[in-house]
Amino acid sequence: MPHVPVPDGLPGITGLLAFKPATGVRVADLMHELLRGESPLTPAERETIGAYVSHRNECEFCARSHSATIPHLGSGAELSEAALVGPAAEGISPKLRALLAVAGAVTEGGHRVSDELVETARAAGATDEELHDTVLIAAAFCMANRYVDGLDAVTPTEDAAYDQMGVRLAREGYRRAL
Amino acid sequence: MPHVPVPDGLPGITGLLAFKPATGVRVADLMHELLRGESPLTPAERETIGAYVSHRNECEFCARSHSATIPHLGSGAELSEAALVGPAAEGISPKLRALLAVAGAVTEGGHRVSDELVETARAAGATDEELHDTVLIAAAFCMANRYVDGLDAVTPTEDAAYDQMGVRLAREGYRRAL
Repeated sequence: MPHVPVPDGLPGITGLLAFKPATGVRVADLMHELLRGESPLTPAERETIGAYVSHRNECEFCARSHSATIPHLGSGAELSEAALVGPAAEGISPKLRALLAVAGAVTEGGHRVSDELVETARAAGATDEELHDTVLIAAAFCMANRYVDGLDAVTPTEDAAYDQMGVRLAREGYRRAL
Repeated sequence: MPHVPVPDGLPGITGLLAFKPATGVRVADLMHELLRGESPLTPAERETIGAYVSHRNECEFCARSHSATIPHLGSGAELSEAALVGPAAEGISPKLRALLAVAGAVTEGGHRVSDELVETARAAGATDEELHDTVLIAAAFCMANRYVDGLDAVTPTEDAAYDQMGVRLAREGYRRAL
């Protein structure tokens, strides 16, 4: 049971956002901009970064809901694998592999992003904006994961619940999560 | 030198927010609502939670700038000590001590917030909203700290620079940080 009262039928972060709409709308607006706003990274690539960070943080709700969104954004199976295993995934581009390594470092802590990781990403073609967006998306999921598990949010067990969320998040994004 | 180009004269997170205003305004808006919006916790108590989390994450820019804001919000010296040492600070209320312990757990990971930590906070008088705000503020600083250090933002060394920031942040908040 969550540590604060949430409305029925709103699992995971959605119940927490509804508990306090003044902060909820701002969290949802930021996540929407990060995952669906202008970026040289595709929405599917950005969802992959977020799902991978969530796996690393052992946040089941975020990992499963964002992993479930990836196939509904028209991506190949290689991104779904990357959401689970990160840079070790087969078939992803050298650039995404290097950006996932940066995201993994962010998960451990900001100081873990070494010059070498950044240089490897640049050598693979990553631009300033791609580096920026990767670091901020990974950091934002470190927030969302802690929000969800720190308040012990409702975590459905059935795959079907996550697939429904994935369909909706692929179509509508995050502003309407509230 | 930061990993992405930032305008001159904008240290720490402010340079990063300016690098990409579409995400920058949303990060600043969220931080403003968390630290200055409606909450049963005072702005000084909320800054203390943020500064303590930043210390735990070894984010010098965030720890020093938010610590420097606390005295300009009219608080006593006990909050400045709590920003450094957390629940071990002398002279703080049992409720704030328990909430700082929750914030410290969030810093380590969402799953570290135990039922016992929550029960201790409730026994000390913490409400649902105070628990919610503490967890979300701590989580948001885990984002900000990783954003700042993950992109190696400019970190001034002189105390005077942080005191100037503290004066401005106490007076104007975060929406104008951009």
